[in-house]
Amino acid sequence: MSVFVTFKEIKEAAARINPFVHHTPVFTSKTINSICKAEVFFKAENLQKVGAFKARGAVNAVFSLDEESAGKGVATHSSGNHAAALAYAARCRGIEAHVVMPEGALPVKKAAVAGYGAKITYCESTLKAREAALAAVVEQTGAEFIHPYNDTRVIAGQATCALELMQQVSGLHTIITPVGGGGLLSGTALAVSALNPGTVVLGAEPAGADDAFRSLQAGKIIPMENPQTIADGLRTSLGELTFPIIQKYVKAIITVSEPAIMEAMRLIWERMKIVVEPSAAVTLAALLTRRNEIKGSRIGLVISGGNVDLDNLPWIKQKQPGQQSRNYL
Amino acid sequence: MSVFVTFKEIKEAAARINPFVHHTPVFTSKTINSICKAEVFFKAENLQKVGAFKARGAVNAVFSLDEESAGKGVATHSSGNHAAALAYAARCRGIEAHVVMPEGALPVKKAAVAGYGAKITYCESTLKAREAALAAVVEQTGAEFIHPYNDTRVIAGQATCALELMQQVSGLHTIITPVGGGGLLSGTALAVSALNPGTVVLGAEPAGADDAFRSLQAGKIIPMENPQTIADGLRTSLGELTFPIIQKYVKAIITVSEPAIMEAMRLIWERMKIVVEPSAAVTLAALLTRRNEIKGSRIGLVISGGNVDLDNLPWIKQKQPGQQSRNYL
Repeated sequence: MSVFVTFKEIKEAAARINPFVHHTPVFTSKTINSICKAEVFFKAENLQKVGAFKARGAVNAVFSLDEESAGKGVATHSSGNHAAALAYAARCRGIEAHVVMPEGALPVKKAAVAGYGAKITYCESTLKAREAALAAVVEQTGAEFIHPYNDTRVIAGQATCALELMQQVSGLHTIITPVGGGGLLSGTALAVSALNPGTVVLGAEPAGADDAFRSLQAGKIIPMENPQTIADGLRTSLGELTFPIIQKYVKAIITVSEPAIMEAMRLIWERMKIVVEPSAAVTLAALLTRRNEIKGSRIGLVISGGNVDLDNLPWIKQKQPGQQSRNYL
Repeated sequence: MSVFVTFKEIKEAAARINPFVHHTPVFTSKTINSICKAEVFFKAENLQKVGAFKARGAVNAVFSLDEESAGKGVATHSSGNHAAALAYAARCRGIEAHVVMPEGALPVKKAAVAGYGAKITYCESTLKAREAALAAVVEQTGAEFIHPYNDTRVIAGQATCALELMQQVSGLHTIITPVGGGGLLSGTALAVSALNPGTVVLGAEPAGADDAFRSLQAGKIIPMENPQTIADGLRTSLGELTFPIIQKYVKAIITVSEPAIMEAMRLIWERMKIVVEPSAAVTLAALLTRRNEIKGSRIGLVISGGNVDLDNLPWIKQKQPGQQSRNYL
């Protein structure tokens, strides 16, 4: 495979994953349109399998494997949606998934991954410990490492989301996706540039994890060292595969404040009656931040996921003895 | 109009309200199917205009008025979804809506009603004070009183929800709706008995507001005197129009505990990624309570609304100085 993913590979991915992922709906809200003075189309990947677009990339990667490789299983290190997605994809194919997770991961996340039948290896929460644990698992099992974003098969899978959105809604001026490691954003940019090059692709990123913004400014990858954001899916840094695609095809990265993310998240819950995670709300936060620039446009926003800890909502100040505060603001 | 609403009136209501309400989607969840050992279809009226099925009945009532009556406006007393629905319906027709609300109503509810342009009259929170304030408004303006459920036009409107559901999903063995005043349940029962008499219609009700259950047992309306439930939409009692319809066409009322309502609500949020209010979750709570009896069936559940106070979720114990506790359990 080339460094850049071809449009043919994206279409193949769409066909490959079709039996195992949802064709998610697109929602609109007159209230939000009126606030934004634009027509906003929400691609609801929170209703996707495993509650996030990550199912697309993981399923594509797992079903791209030849029989022999697949027989040895797949592996990754993650405490987030990719881990659940890979576990789900492996179960769909009937192969083993090995997931390395930090011991301190949220019980709800552990349960999700275990619920899909993956084998979990716990490690300390440093990147070094994770990588060492993953290397040991791969060494022992021969499982194929599926990176959460720095993998062309994953990027091609994530690209199918924008492909669908463009089929569902015509004439979009702009599509905005969140950017963490860049799998969704780079895939979106590739699909749009091939199918509808007139559409502008933007990334939305928390100001407290603005490595994509700074990397594009600097012209090289600047990893995020100490991300501070409620958007737990966006704390990762761009990868060597995703960065050049984003550099070439994405017009700009919009950074947003933590209060803006929370306000957007709450607005979606209240007005659209759907559960979205903070990482998914950064796109609307970006739109609200820049609303004067996009007046009258047709904008597609990718609602990336809906996996949120319902016991710890960011806008509720709570006191539970012995429990660590999770209010980031 | 007859005491019972005809199927012709229901079909007329569907045509009348069509331009002003959403054709809401039906959602499914493999996890919930697996827990219930049944095929469950959720009719998502939380995505309806004003966030509840109440838009159907209110719009039908408002658009059933002749020009002269309409010109004098409409009025109701309510602090819930019917107030917002009537305000919305009146705005659609370009007429005035007068809403009598208790002073202590939640600010978010006041804002919703005011946001649709209704004129609000505040009163004390007793039924007597509400009725007196409403009578004064009607006397002064000549506005038509639209009762939240004890009105054939409202019942016909609510009936369109089941009509749609039966068009969207074939071969349902059972349909369950929440029951408060009985507008939705009686409308559903009429639509089902006309279109698909083999389908069983059940009502779901909090044990702490079980007037429908007790009224059916007694063979006469037994009003609820001191309802104790988190399901704020279901604290009302059956009306003289809704009771006989329910008595004739509804097979049973299933009562559910407060913990069961909360568990069902949370399950829907977590697994289906949609925001539903406690009153909407009683149907799934009923299904979970009776799951051994319905194994293998195809069940339709009406998710009646999604208007919930996001600052006060029932499963989060919080302490905010000066704020009254809203944890009912």
